[in-house]
Amino acid sequence: MTSKKTPRFHLVYWPEIQGRGEFVRLALEDAGATYTDIARLPEQLGGGHGAIEAALAGDRGKVRPFAPPILVHGKVVVAQVAAILHYVGPLLGLAPKKEAQRLEVLQHQLTLTDFVAEVHDTHHPISTELTYEKQAAEAKKRAKSFREKRMPKFLGYFESLLEGNGKKAKWLVGKSATTLDLSMFQIVEGLAYAFPRSFDRFSENIPRLMDLHGRVMARPGIAAYLASERRLPFNEMGIFRHYAALDGK
Amino acid sequence: MTSKKTPRFHLVYWPEIQGRGEFVRLALEDAGATYTDIARLPEQLGGGHGAIEAALAGDRGKVRPFAPPILVHGKVVVAQVAAILHYVGPLLGLAPKKEAQRLEVLQHQLTLTDFVAEVHDTHHPISTELTYEKQAAEAKKRAKSFREKRMPKFLGYFESLLEGNGKKAKWLVGKSATTLDLSMFQIVEGLAYAFPRSFDRFSENIPRLMDLHGRVMARPGIAAYLASERRLPFNEMGIFRHYAALDGK
Repeated sequence: MTSKKTPRFHLVYWPEIQGRGEFVRLALEDAGATYTDIARLPEQLGGGHGAIEAALAGDRGKVRPFAPPILVHGKVVVAQVAAILHYVGPLLGLAPKKEAQRLEVLQHQLTLTDFVAEVHDTHHPISTELTYEKQAAEAKKRAKSFREKRMPKFLGYFESLLEGNGKKAKWLVGKSATTLDLSMFQIVEGLAYAFPRSFDRFSENIPRLMDLHGRVMARPGIAAYLASERRLPFNEMGIFRHYAALDGK
Repeated sequence: MTSKKTPRFHLVYWPEIQGRGEFVRLALEDAGATYTDIARLPEQLGGGHGAIEAALAGDRGKVRPFAPPILVHGKVVVAQVAAILHYVGPLLGLAPKKEAQRLEVLQHQLTLTDFVAEVHDTHHPISTELTYEKQAAEAKKRAKSFREKRMPKFLGYFESLLEGNGKKAKWLVGKSATTLDLSMFQIVEGLAYAFPRSFDRFSENIPRLMDLHGRVMARPGIAAYLASERRLPFNEMGIFRHYAALDGK
């Protein structure tokens, strides 16, 4: 990844949170790619929120994205997590070689995208413009439905995918780890942070996903990343937020 | 599309609604592809909800999808609208030839995917398990935020994309119509149905998108489809639902 043939990766994402950008960071870190997390640079060096605003205004090339995360790689400017991972997976050695399996990874990543949006809406069911506190009553209702129906439905599906991928299969699609497995790791991390009580209880139903989580965590690139200052802690500004009132009893 | 070299397309989607399946139907219809809308066949012929349940159980091949719509094409089984369109676009002549532009179409389609989920949540902000009537109070709040903030933000973005694609450009990406343009047509159709008052008022701000909508509607394959019985009417079971209480004043 650091050869002169490959241009450097530039990630444009909020510097205070893991958020959706974390799915991209994990792929870059797992592969040991050299990248710049632009907005985490000091403003004097072109970082901060100004870098995000500039990218959204189209300073990075022909493509003007709707929202971060944005990956810049040479002339390529790509936003939306699943599109970024679809592009970057093969470059990082984190995509299946067969085109049909690459399409399958995209499909499942989109299901994770839907799931992440539902996680977000547990604390923001009414409006992204309002604080959590101003929609806490509705959030409590939505989170209950999430914990009892949606989380089991989504995670149960991915558990069965892992089961269906064969006795010897360690990864969700194909025989090697893909960006999808890294994303699933992050989902487990996030749910364990946001819903410690209810996710801990539910996790007994998804032994294969929990095992996958452990194996991703032990990968050298991921282990080094998690031990570094580059890994931001979870907080109450990102997608996965811990509010005790949303975690049930 | 009807040559012997290309296997027939099979679409697996709810037979009662346009829903997310409509984005796929529009692409197939625009291209004049021969396809079977499996679940709309009589049950004796393998149609109905049983066909959907069977596909979700994995009867169509190795890939077991999370939810409809599902497109089956030879050995390929692909779900999630954006993944389906990414796969089928080149086969139908509805994708840019340049790989970078194809990635751009995917990126923008994912932004539409996010938008469609937000449209859905205007009538289901708390739980997909409950009827609209049981979450009507919360829906009223969410719809207000949608009408006033989210719809202008998303549609304003796509309007500016069309503007940015050059004076002579008639389509969102590149020089020819893509699946993205057909999807944008459907978004306009759906908003006009669901929010007649507020969308009609807002539409003055998006003249380029309204013009695009008209041009897609006039395409021979689309015009023939809209005039046929294959085009289901909008109703209060799909994504775009009309509830007067959600349309503002």
